[in-house]
Formats: sequence, C-alpha cells, structure tokens
Amino acid sequence: MPHSIITLTTDFGLRDPYVAEMKAVILNISPNTVIVDVSHEIEKFNIRMGAYTMACAAPYFPTGTIHVAVVDPDVGTKRKAILVQTERAYFIEPDNGILALAARKQSIKHVYEISNRKLMLPNVSGTFHGRDIFAPAAAYLAKGVPPKEFGTELSEIEKPAFANVSRRASRLIGEIIHVDGFGNVITNFAAEDVESMKAKVFINIKLNDVSLKLKFCRTYGDAKKQELLAIIGSHGFMEISMNKDNAAQKLKAKSGDKISLYFP
Amino acid sequence: MPHSIITLTTDFGLRDPYVAEMKAVILNISPNTVIVDVSHEIEKFNIRMGAYTMACAAPYFPTGTIHVAVVDPDVGTKRKAILVQTERAYFIEPDNGILALAARKQSIKHVYEISNRKLMLPNVSGTFHGRDIFAPAAAYLAKGVPPKEFGTELSEIEKPAFANVSRRASRLIGEIIHVDGFGNVITNFAAEDVESMKAKVFINIKLNDVSLKLKFCRTYGDAKKQELLAIIGSHGFMEISMNKDNAAQKLKAKSGDKISLYFP
Amino acid sequence: MPHSIITLTTDFGLRDPYVAEMKAVILNISPNTVIVDVSHEIEKFNIRMGAYTMACAAPYFPTGTIHVAVVDPDVGTKRKAILVQTERAYFIEPDNGILALAARKQSIKHVYEISNRKLMLPNVSGTFHGRDIFAPAAAYLAKGVPPKEFGTELSEIEKPAFANVSRRASRLIGEIIHVDGFGNVITNFAAEDVESMKAKVFINIKLNDVSLKLKFCRTYGDAKKQELLAIIGSHGFMEISMNKDNAAQKLKAKSGDKISLYFP
Repeated sequence: MPHSIITLTTDFGLRDPYVAEMKAVILNISPNTVIVDVSHEIEKFNIRMGAYTMACAAPYFPTGTIHVAVVDPDVGTKRKAILVQTERAYFIEPDNGILALAARKQSIKHVYEISNRKLMLPNVSGTFHGRDIFAPAAAYLAKGVPPKEFGTELSEIEKPAFANVSRRASRLIGEIIHVDGFGNVITNFAAEDVESMKAKVFINIKLNDVSLKLKFCRTYGDAKKQELLAIIGSHGFMEISMNKDNAAQKLKAKSGDKISLYFP
Repeated sequence: MPHSIITLTTDFGLRDPYVAEMKAVILNISPNTVIVDVSHEIEKFNIRMGAYTMACAAPYFPTGTIHVAVVDPDVGTKRKAILVQTERAYFIEPDNGILALAARKQSIKHVYEISNRKLMLPNVSGTFHGRDIFAPAAAYLAKGVPPKEFGTELSEIEKPAFANVSRRASRLIGEIIHVDGFGNVITNFAAEDVESMKAKVFINIKLNDVSLKLKFCRTYGDAKKQELLAIIGSHGFMEISMNKDNAAQKLKAKSGDKISLYFP
Repeated sequence: MPHSIITLTTDFGLRDPYVAEMKAVILNISPNTVIVDVSHEIEKFNIRMGAYTMACAAPYFPTGTIHVAVVDPDVGTKRKAILVQTERAYFIEPDNGILALAARKQSIKHVYEISNRKLMLPNVSGTFHGRDIFAPAAAYLAKGVPPKEFGTELSEIEKPAFANVSRRASRLIGEIIHVDGFGNVITNFAAEDVESMKAKVFINIKLNDVSLKLKFCRTYGDAKKQELLAIIGSHGFMEISMNKDNAAQKLKAKSGDKISLYFP
C-alpha cells in the first residue's frame, strides 16, 4: 500500500495557527506527503460531527490514505491515542469514538496504542497532542514506519455515544446526525433502512414533535422551489431538504434531534 | 499545454466534507495534480459572485490550468455540465452563466457537454455533481484525456442574468458586483469605462438613492483615515472604499445594488 | 538551505479570491513550491495577531521555509516591503512590526528592502501588494534568486507597538496577546517569566479590574469541568482556560486587555 496522502479533520478552526503547526510537523518529517484538509470547522468537542464527516470523506480517498482526526475534549488525560489499520486506510486519533461511523464501512484489521515516544515530538505539551503526537505519528507512518512500531496492539476501540437506528412496529426511530451548510437535515437512516419506501411518492415523518408529509425525491429539482422534501443524499443517508432554500432554518432542526419515519 | 493545476470555486463552505470529497476523487484519478482552492465561500447559489471570483483569479494561473466552478442551484435537473476550452485554460462547470465574466478576458475556443459516463464516478447521485461529475472530469482532463472525449461539441454557453454597464447622456449606469471582506464595494465599471475621469480629483456618484462626492484615489492612503474614496481596484474595476475602515457597512451597500456615475 | 515551502499569513479571509491570486502568482513563477496556509483569518489590520500567529507557527516549519505575512493597513504608502533572513528561515512582509515576535526566537542575519521591479509583477497595483510584490518575491526566492538581488540591505526592522512584559515589586504586568477559537485567553507572559510559580497550586491574577485565583494546571483535565484555570500553553505562553468551555466568553477578555500576576 502506498501511503502518501494525509487528511486532517479537527475542531481547531482556520483562524488560529494550530492546523498550520500540524502541517509543518508533517512536512518536516515527511516532505513529500500531500496533505488534504477534510474539515477544521467541526463544532468544538462534537465527536458525532467529526465521526460523520470522516465517514463521508474517507471512502473517496485512495487506498493507503492516512486520516488524522483530532476532536479531543479529553486531551492530556488518560484517553488513549490510537492508530487503526482498516482494509484500505489508516486512522490516527484519540480513542473516543470518532472513528465509529467510518469503521462501519471498512473492516478494522489492527488497532495500536500510540505510545512510542520516539515517534512523537521531543516535547509533548499537555494541551496540543494534534501537533505533538498525532501529526508526527501520521508523518512517520507515511514515511514507512510499520504500524506495530507505534505501540501495543489493542483488541478494540471505544464505542461512541451515538444512537443507532431502531425499529418499532410501524416506525423507524433515529436522529439528526448533521446539518450541513445548505441547511440539509441529515438523518442516520441509511438508504437500506428506507429501501421499502423508495416507490412511495410521499412519506410521513415526525421531527421532534412536528408531523410532516414529505415528497420523496430523487433530486432537489423534483420539488417546487422552497418545498420541503425527503431525499437519499449523496452519502447514502436520508435527508430533509428544501429546494433552493434552507430546511434546517425552516424546521429549527439541529444535530441530535429525534426523528421517526412511519411506514404506511 | 501542460495541465497539472486544478482550481476549485464552490458555494460548499469549508465546514462540510464536500470539498474534501472532490479533492479525494481528483487525487484518486490523477495523483500528481496540484489542487488550489479559489473560494468555497461563494454565497449559496450566487452565480454572479462565483462569476466575479473566477474572473478575478483565473488570469493569474499558469496556462493550461483547469478551473472547476460549482455553484449549482439546478443540480440534477436538465441544466448541462460543460467543459470550456479557452485560449489559455479549461473551465468545468454547470452551464449557468458562471463562466461569463472570466470568458470575456480569454476567448472561447471550444465548448463540450460533459456526458460520457465513463468519465464520471460509477454512481452519480442526484445531488452532488461536484464530486460525481465535475471533479472526475477535471481529473481525467488533467491526466490527458482529450476534451472531445467528454461529449458533444456545443455552439454556445448560457448567458448570465447580470446587468451590463450602460451609458445614458451624462451618466454611466451599473451595479455592485461584489462586496469583499474588507468592505470594499466593487462596481462593474471597468477601468476603461471611467478612463475619462482619471484626471479628476473628485467624482459624483449615486448609490441606490444616495448622492456622494468621492475623492478619486490611486491608493487607500491618499484619503484620510475613515474617508470614503473611489479607486480602480486591483482587478480593474472601480471600487468605493474607506481608508482603514469598511465602506460597505457605512453605505449599507450589497451585491446587486444600482450605481450611477455622473460625468461632469 | 533548500527553500521549497512558502507559508501565507494574511487578513484577506477565504471568501474573496485574493489568497488564490497569490498562490497563482507563486505557482506561475515557481511551480514546484509547496504552499501552506498559516491563517487568512487574522483580524483586519491587526498586526499584533499576525505577529503572534507567525511566532507560533514558524518554528515548526523546516529550515529554509519562506514565510509571507501580509497584514498591511498602509499598503501603497511609503512603508517598506522587506525580506528578512534569519538563521533558519526567510520572512517577506510589509515593514510594520509583524515579524517582531517570530524574530525574537530566531536571530536576524540580513534585512533587504524589496525594491527590484524585475522581481515584481509587471503591473503593481496601489492596493494589492500581496499579489503584486510579496507573492512574486517569495516565488523568486524559492526559485533560487539570492536575497541581495531584491534591494538594498537595511540595518533594522520596524519595532512593533506591542507592550512588553514588565515587573514591578511583587507583580508581573502584561497583556492578552490573543484569544483563540476555543476561548483560551493567551497572555504575553512566557514560561520563563512565571517559572517561579510553577510549584504553586494556585496563582493570583488581575484581568482588567477583576481579581482571580486560578489553579495552575499541567493539562485542561486537571481542573473540573467548566473551571477556570491557568496553564502554560503549547507555545510557551501562560493562558487562562476553562476545562471544556470558553474562558474568553466567561471573562469577557479580548486581545489587548491588561493583566497582572501577583507573586506570593
């Protein structure tokens, strides 16, 4: 597996120098690496949003890509730093569930704790492991250091605190997993979960306490301008959208809201 | 023509994973391409702002650069995806007028509809053609696939809905084409349009319904601190600015506002 | 010294095409350069924030990196454009103090005025020297043009208007140098300045007119959730932080605020 691409997903924002410091550390160790920003605008400490973002982006990168995700509310405490090898990529991150959704799509082969001090910066701060531990780990891995050099092999990774989809009699119960910049309200209902609804023209849902009957569309333009609609989004989850307008504003929907889909 | 640079201009924002997915698709197909972000903060669905942004940036890139612009309110409908070859660059985009201003500066040689399914991702979603059609098209072009392989040659591109500058008796009539992050209020009056005013110390304009007499400066520092001024900006359009302050806030000016310049 | 990396620090934002134009100019002159964004979200005209940001990021980049910083309220006036060679890097910028903090960490070897018109774009605007002067200077330097070709050697650089730390009887007087995106309130007290406090459990400070007794922690997790704390941050300055919350909001602290630390 070649491994020359490193991706970065953090809640650091782009205003502060933190992301650039991670890139500097990577380029110092592994000068020929191509670094791709996935997002640095993950909401502070929002592991669910980080997990969703990585799950969307990771499948499109070449085999052998190294994904670094740093949403790390417990930096400096006993939470572990881990290196996860899946069938087609590497993930480097705090062990806090941020890999949970991405790992559903690619089976995990090995998990290593990152504890080898020789593969960190000489001075490790108590507050910025993105620069001092995760960036150098990614760079040494890109440079060819074998995964098992980083530390002890672990048997499992932390489970996240996200809700799973559940089915009860005639309804599917889930939650809003993300609201994107267009105001698309993305649920955790996968395309498979709603397969049986595909032939329907309309579907009935309840979002928080509001009941809605939505046209089930193939593309935004199947609905009228400013009409609410349901659609299987481009990452395979059901979304509630509004043609050329902002569904989340209209519905006051936010990440974590509860949603039910009623089968006819 | 070498073509190893791909630029991206979208209204996707940097918070969501969409831009990274486009980059992943490009690097998967054409690993040695250098990708440069022009802007991902185009206002949602604002084709005029996208057109202005591309017209500013494109001329500075090397010959053979491939510019991808995705501001696409009609994604998934019958609007065409096109590849435009000009005398010095390639443009890949929905055919909705977003190329109009950039193409004024470089004459168009060929226009092709992008319809060859072999040069798209295997699954094309109804909502994210940036990733599924435009990114792979750019990457295959960068890799050396000839433009005519993408689809049928077309005879013209869509005209945009922007106003042109018009002249009536003693005044020039135009509009605000962009308000930048410094609060500079950029008009669609080109340097040539106001050539005859260049020797003047002051000019008279009307912005919306407010008449203003402005010092015509060569640089911001020619005006006093917080003084409104007119200037030919660095992209060749007349701007209304305020030395070390925000002219747009002061004037409550926004994209699309009407402006008249009175000849003496 | 190899010099193939150029970093960019500006107050241009990422919405407008300005940063992309600088990158286009660089890639046109020096196609193999790797460009790294440090931050484009420096507050407009805030030289202190620009100086702090560069001082944080520069030390992590490889030897020979070229750092371009454009926060330039006096663009187009008589302020000089300079190229500064330190023991391990190059800095290209308006001579307005923005290099002051970074240069404390690496001693300056040479300063040159950038005045050679052959190393600028053919047309130099009065408003955008980032694109017309600073970007080409960086690119020609990356390409191997010797520093002395850019212009006359100068004997010194401008001093900034920032406060230094001062000591009076039993207190240390300084200021808030930056508030980051997590709400960390970063002071200009260096780790050395507060060395004698390191063994203390609590320290007493006054921020603006409010007295605070803060736990002096090694990592955020040493404090309770939402507890205010003091810490030596990852760049060697004392910060006031709040475990998993925003200290700046709580304290209404902003860049430039006065702070005193009382020795016991």
